[in-house]
Amino acid sequence: MNISHIEHLGIAVKSIADSLPYYEEVLGLKCYSIEEVADQKVKTAFFKVGQTKIELLEPTSEESAVARFIEKRGEGVHHIAFAVPNVADALASAEAKGVQLIDKSPRKGAEGLNIAFLHPKTTKGVLTELCS
Amino acid sequence: MNISHIEHLGIAVKSIADSLPYYEEVLGLKCYSIEEVADQKVKTAFFKVGQTKIELLEPTSEESAVARFIEKRGEGVHHIAFAVPNVADALASAEAKGVQLIDKSPRKGAEGLNIAFLHPKTTKGVLTELCS
Repeated sequence: MNISHIEHLGIAVKSIADSLPYYEEVLGLKCYSIEEVADQKVKTAFFKVGQTKIELLEPTSEESAVARFIEKRGEGVHHIAFAVPNVADALASAEAKGVQLIDKSPRKGAEGLNIAFLHPKTTKGVLTELCS
Repeated sequence: MNISHIEHLGIAVKSIADSLPYYEEVLGLKCYSIEEVADQKVKTAFFKVGQTKIELLEPTSEESAVARFIEKRGEGVHHIAFAVPNVADALASAEAKGVQLIDKSPRKGAEGLNIAFLHPKTTKGVLTELCS
């Protein structure tokens, strides 16, 4: 699937406002963008850490998958996103090897990326995003 | 604290042997090292993904913290490790800003790194490692 790097890590938080002091003042990272992704019912905040971004995910509705994640497991790492040259090709390759797809085809995510998710049932417990 | 990049992601798995096909055949990553870290009661497997490593953690004892993690939350992302120039300095800086330390001073981890952990209670739910 030709993964080049980890594009971002999604981290579920109850509140971006409450989390910024830890990320900015303790870790010394700089938030460069706050964006709402309406169809995923989340607000996102982005930080660059070397080649990878950290994406904080705050649910904007109780029906958000991120809200259900926090309710069940508490705040913490929600998903890993790998950068691939072509999401549709990577999905086809994963499906051919028995991975269960959440998204059968790429859709638009935060920052205008093409994204698709693989089901954690078939990725050793890690909700996995592919993006390009 | 001058974080340069994400040094690695620690992922808890029940069995490295059972996880290798997913990481190698589906994701196309190459395991370059398998190492036992006796004092943490884990076996580790490393993969390079761009600037970052993925470290699979398999408990070698039921008393391992990783075994307790899997029992409670299932397989999944266990910790994020940030690369810093000096772990002792970064620990002092974090503690001064109210972060609870698991390790009061650096110790030796996998791959000969100096490492120390911050408590997830004060890092928005993410078990966080500093290493250099």
